[in-house]
Amino acid sequence: MTDREAIAAIEDRIRAAYAAGDAERVAAQYTEDGMLLGPEHPALAGREAIAEAYRGFFATHHGELENEIEEIEVAGDWAFVRGRIRLRVVGKEEGAEPVRLQGKYLAIARRDTDGLWRFARDAYSFDHPAGEPAGEP
Amino acid sequence: MTDREAIAAIEDRIRAAYAAGDAERVAAQYTEDGMLLGPEHPALAGREAIAEAYRGFFATHHGELENEIEEIEVAGDWAFVRGRIRLRVVGKEEGAEPVRLQGKYLAIARRDTDGLWRFARDAYSFDHPAGEPAGEP
Repeated sequence: MTDREAIAAIEDRIRAAYAAGDAERVAAQYTEDGMLLGPEHPALAGREAIAEAYRGFFATHHGELENEIEEIEVAGDWAFVRGRIRLRVVGKEEGAEPVRLQGKYLAIARRDTDGLWRFARDAYSFDHPAGEPAGEP
Repeated sequence: MTDREAIAAIEDRIRAAYAAGDAERVAAQYTEDGMLLGPEHPALAGREAIAEAYRGFFATHHGELENEIEEIEVAGDWAFVRGRIRLRVVGKEEGAEPVRLQGKYLAIARRDTDGLWRFARDAYSFDHPAGEPAGEP
């Protein structure tokens, strides 16, 4: 497996964990000191903080994540990945309507101490205001 | 000047150009194929698209940008920079009230063909919803 394939596989594992609502498996794709920089909240610092945020989200929502990698640039034990994301989110309460979000991300991957590539930094935002989703699912 | 100093200087030039309302000087700190990934709009691709967006913004607003670099990691001709931003924005119409925004960014810098470091990718978002600024200035 090339570095590029190994880096693309990070996203496959995040997507599968996301669909399963498994916060620990999402967070496991980030380095121990990983950071998630998303809109409308301060940066989340550390794998445990990322897991906690996803536990909260998955407790009340089911989500499906799609991503499209637009570039991967490898520089030694570091790499960056840029692409697009699409999210379909449904609250778990009865009668909740699904919402679609679309956006983009820029992530720094690092070859971790165990040799696996993980995300060390992951910054994303949506293409539309939070109150105006991308359209009906 | 070390690479780290040269990379930090990109931000100094952006800050000065921002305060001067000079869209071309802001955009000149990005590579020709530079991309700006911000909240609530699709990615801006290319120096000219970045300049155009800033021309529109500076036509109607005066802004002051502060930034605090929290890390710089250099890998050959690539580097990433992560930090915090604070913005003070005032509309140019009479009686406009200033608004403060705070957020974070993750940028990829590249040693450009002329030897200067510029931002190739720059992703940022704010820590609060757009309609709920960080506080009164």
